[in-house]
Amino acid sequence: MSSLNVIRRGGAYKTRVIIHGVRKSYSTTVNSTVQTLDKIESFPENSTIFSLIQPTGNIHLGNYLGAIRGWKELSETESQGSKFIFGIADLHAITLPKEAHKLKQFRYEAIASILAGGLNPDKCIVFHQSAVPEHTELSWYLTCITSMGSLNRMTQWKSKAQQTDSSSIYEDSVLESTKAGLLCYPILQAADILIYRSTHVPVGDDQTQHLELTRGIANTFNHTYNTKFFPIPKTLLTPSKKILSLRNPGKKMSKSDPDQNSCVYVTDEPDVIAKKIRKATTDSIQGRIYYDPEERPGVSNLINVISGLTGVTVEQTVKDLEWVKDHKQFKDFVTELIVNEFKDSRELYNHLLTDLSHLDQICKEGGNKAREIASANITEVRKLIGMD
Amino acid sequence: MSSLNVIRRGGAYKTRVIIHGVRKSYSTTVNSTVQTLDKIESFPENSTIFSLIQPTGNIHLGNYLGAIRGWKELSETESQGSKFIFGIADLHAITLPKEAHKLKQFRYEAIASILAGGLNPDKCIVFHQSAVPEHTELSWYLTCITSMGSLNRMTQWKSKAQQTDSSSIYEDSVLESTKAGLLCYPILQAADILIYRSTHVPVGDDQTQHLELTRGIANTFNHTYNTKFFPIPKTLLTPSKKILSLRNPGKKMSKSDPDQNSCVYVTDEPDVIAKKIRKATTDSIQGRIYYDPEERPGVSNLINVISGLTGVTVEQTVKDLEWVKDHKQFKDFVTELIVNEFKDSRELYNHLLTDLSHLDQICKEGGNKAREIASANITEVRKLIGMD
Repeated sequence: MSSLNVIRRGGAYKTRVIIHGVRKSYSTTVNSTVQTLDKIESFPENSTIFSLIQPTGNIHLGNYLGAIRGWKELSETESQGSKFIFGIADLHAITLPKEAHKLKQFRYEAIASILAGGLNPDKCIVFHQSAVPEHTELSWYLTCITSMGSLNRMTQWKSKAQQTDSSSIYEDSVLESTKAGLLCYPILQAADILIYRSTHVPVGDDQTQHLELTRGIANTFNHTYNTKFFPIPKTLLTPSKKILSLRNPGKKMSKSDPDQNSCVYVTDEPDVIAKKIRKATTDSIQGRIYYDPEERPGVSNLINVISGLTGVTVEQTVKDLEWVKDHKQFKDFVTELIVNEFKDSRELYNHLLTDLSHLDQICKEGGNKAREIASANITEVRKLIGMD
Repeated sequence: MSSLNVIRRGGAYKTRVIIHGVRKSYSTTVNSTVQTLDKIESFPENSTIFSLIQPTGNIHLGNYLGAIRGWKELSETESQGSKFIFGIADLHAITLPKEAHKLKQFRYEAIASILAGGLNPDKCIVFHQSAVPEHTELSWYLTCITSMGSLNRMTQWKSKAQQTDSSSIYEDSVLESTKAGLLCYPILQAADILIYRSTHVPVGDDQTQHLELTRGIANTFNHTYNTKFFPIPKTLLTPSKKILSLRNPGKKMSKSDPDQNSCVYVTDEPDVIAKKIRKATTDSIQGRIYYDPEERPGVSNLINVISGLTGVTVEQTVKDLEWVKDHKQFKDFVTELIVNEFKDSRELYNHLLTDLSHLDQICKEGGNKAREIASANITEVRKLIGMD
């Protein structure tokens, strides 16, 4: 028995399929501005593929599968004349308050993480957003053409501004405790993308609404200044499912989870990984492993981990797991995969953090390359606005 | 008969005095963060005096007396080791939409105006705000520590967002038509001031609320990052009264007034100035000239013009006008003063606009000097935040 239904979510379409009890949910290219990443073998000539990740400290499995792993694969496609620009969104990081020494440490850890994850600075530009002041300059120009209404519709803004059913964002107490950086966050994100005239932006599906806003802002700019300067960037949805907490698969994997057994870090030693997976919440259903995020959230989460690490579809992963007899075998397999995946990364990560001046040098070179592109583009933008 | 009453307005105190029928209203130093400009002969060592003016096209008498004339006088004080930084707020200009060729033209006209008004680029830094990207970079850092509530209290925001009694800013239709640049305007203004670690900011009294916000933001930054990096800048209130429309002294002099006889430009020929002043609305009260903004708004406005141009108090100006027998004599006197004041300016202004590359060169030199200061300061700010 099989069923298929298509539901619309934030501009992108989701297709939910249930085949022989295996439910699969994936994004598909019914909308030409949203593509899934796993279908991509090359980009059109002179594409610019751009994405940033926030420096949130130690990188966990969810961050890794949601961003870094995809970036690495993209940068290894055969794409003549294309540019790959990946970096650390340190300017966005301060929309939630951080102590200076922590931000500094997080910036290093984030750069070390993406390099340890396999990103090759010879194949792509690796940099800190803050090293390129053209981001904030363009952000101001875009702030002047972005309506308050479009910002106010962003669900991340609503949730971060602690808008609940009973408290409106317009209540004085909420406005007092909410910083303007949270409202303007997606404008800076649009500037990040557009300053490089990016054509493709790999993100997780929690960012589709911001990307839709970016396209709107690019269109508004082009229309306002009667130009086609900004390409309308496409969203590349990360194929990997959102990785959930190992201990409570009702919520996302998060480094701020008080139960640190819920979260596997790229830097965890093999025995720590083994312990965390062993303690992962599953269920008491005996027999073969199958995918059902609603009835078997813990098991399905681990299937997503396997699928994300192997690049094999969930459906095929389940078929490939037919040899598995019990949860112990299943968990041992997951552990082995993660340990292998992170073995080199862990060593490289630790090594990179022993030589910060080397990291500084990599970032400086990446920043210079990024700035060269951004500087040429902001010069054009200024001419279009009448600012030069 | 004399009376005195003190009213509080937006943090600054206004003293209203009526002496022998001459009513005078002036700001005074009851609040140490707000001073009047006319008392200043020198600044403490190593002060930084900073202000910007928007490029709104041709400069009129109100703009001249409200800003440029005061800047010139300040930059000529004996202030050892002090810096004077005056420029064009072209980044703020785009918070209300402008065609590119108009912005470009307005930028040149604005620079020509402040130079024609007597500002000497050897005594002060003259530049375009947009030439120093550190303004927008700092603006982002400050956006992350500025509450939505404090921005929402700004009366300019409320009025520019067309908030009326019957339409709330929170109505969807208002949010759709309001750009985020209008909300963030005062944060960029704070960044303008703070990026130079300015100590004194000469402004008209319509900017006192924004300056109060700037002090709040400076305090928040210093407190958040446990530093005293930003001085808390003082407001220097321009002593000149707001110059009103010559034809309708119930509203401000404005270049957008459909009746162009209401507005005297720095560039007007003498016969045009004479005609505009001749047509200025006064009243039918015969006999001596006296100051009474409520009963004699047209006459009082012209007294304010004289007082602004001569630097003599309104009270003394009225005494000095005892020889005047009728409105014609009075208006001829006003005309003569304006024509003399603007004679050199008009010629210099027209001359400057015949050589744009010369203006470019002056702005470039000013921009480089400004950037040198801004660049050193943003480096310190980044260290304090943990961004470097």
